[in-house]
Amino acid sequence: MKKAIVLLSGGLDSATTLFYAKSKGYQVQALMFDYGQRHKKELRCARQLAKKVRCPFSVVKIVLPWKGSVLLDKKMSLPENRKLDNPEIPPTYVPGRNIIFLSYAASFAETVGAQAIFIGANAVDYSGYPDCRPEFYAAFQEVLKKGMKTGVEHKAIKVETPLIRKTKAQIIRLGLRLGVPYAMTWSCYAGLRWMCGACDSCRLRAKGFALTRIKDPALARSPSIGKGSRVWG
Amino acid sequence: MKKAIVLLSGGLDSATTLFYAKSKGYQVQALMFDYGQRHKKELRCARQLAKKVRCPFSVVKIVLPWKGSVLLDKKMSLPENRKLDNPEIPPTYVPGRNIIFLSYAASFAETVGAQAIFIGANAVDYSGYPDCRPEFYAAFQEVLKKGMKTGVEHKAIKVETPLIRKTKAQIIRLGLRLGVPYAMTWSCYAGLRWMCGACDSCRLRAKGFALTRIKDPALARSPSIGKGSRVWG
Repeated sequence: MKKAIVLLSGGLDSATTLFYAKSKGYQVQALMFDYGQRHKKELRCARQLAKKVRCPFSVVKIVLPWKGSVLLDKKMSLPENRKLDNPEIPPTYVPGRNIIFLSYAASFAETVGAQAIFIGANAVDYSGYPDCRPEFYAAFQEVLKKGMKTGVEHKAIKVETPLIRKTKAQIIRLGLRLGVPYAMTWSCYAGLRWMCGACDSCRLRAKGFALTRIKDPALARSPSIGKGSRVWG
Repeated sequence: MKKAIVLLSGGLDSATTLFYAKSKGYQVQALMFDYGQRHKKELRCARQLAKKVRCPFSVVKIVLPWKGSVLLDKKMSLPENRKLDNPEIPPTYVPGRNIIFLSYAASFAETVGAQAIFIGANAVDYSGYPDCRPEFYAAFQEVLKKGMKTGVEHKAIKVETPLIRKTKAQIIRLGLRLGVPYAMTWSCYAGLRWMCGACDSCRLRAKGFALTRIKDPALARSPSIGKGSRVWG
């Protein structure tokens, strides 16, 4: 049976990617990262999701001796109600984050003999992070071809980004077809008890659900959404 | 003043690279990794070297939930007296090691505003690791161009591999001119008190010193070298 590593953050995109990889016949192993993110709750959701689908998972702890992002530093304030088509890279960008995640995934995949790495990156309804764009994944694919034993001796591990050109609404529709329990996912950056409704991640999620005309099932857990902040627009 | 991150393992190549980057006018910061390697002594040497040249350093702890290499597992035996021109990738290869190291270096470099990352990789007198070859570094350079803020907005952080096409003897001669204290470096994989003289790393080092007709100053600390094992050939 073909094997794959799925990067699972506990958010909407990675949960959909997990179900997608399973639907394509892969035996999946989830890889999660505890990298000092202020929204640790996503990690709890990731564990619950993996357990729900009986998928083995590993958690890698990453301790960066530097910060460089508001996502890693609770003393800094998160941007709120930012225009979603703002071309600037926001301060929630973590330098090298997906490069680090994929490096670990590559090491893991080669060690366990997996042929593919699935990542839920998206370059349509996204925050403009450079490491979410197709050009970056094409470049990283080349690294796996040139810098790993499998790439040199046989066939490179494939980086799969099934959501990269989909809108958030298309991702949600796909996930609903695949049975993703979105109530168990967590998108908010703020690290509060409820989703804040104002950070980029909450607003992209709300935009997606609004366009599918489906109520976000996670909202029952986040009654504050939409109160006092524009959800998206 | 231009800044650079130098990956410093405590071995001969990275020590030479540290002195080389300094000689090129960079203000350097060393980055070291505690990745569960059996030869922890190299890390002690790296710290001493950084202190010697008054270079600030950070140590990143990497805990891989998988092994995949004899370098990470003391229960497995190291290959001894392997033919140095053997084209096979040896079991000391760690899947994705330099990809992981460079990812952290990229995150660090962008956070502190460094323009370059120096790594002492070598593809002449080496063990055939795919992540030591120029093709791999060219591919990784593209990742920094496509996946990081600096690469997209301004100018990508440069990956510098000044030793990549030099023989071990050429590296040693360069280092001696730059004043590298080779007595403070450590190459052996075995994790013993003395250098074993039989692992690839010891033998490549011994070959380099033999060709320069200079006695390895670290040998005074490793009297066992050459006793009971061929040093190189």
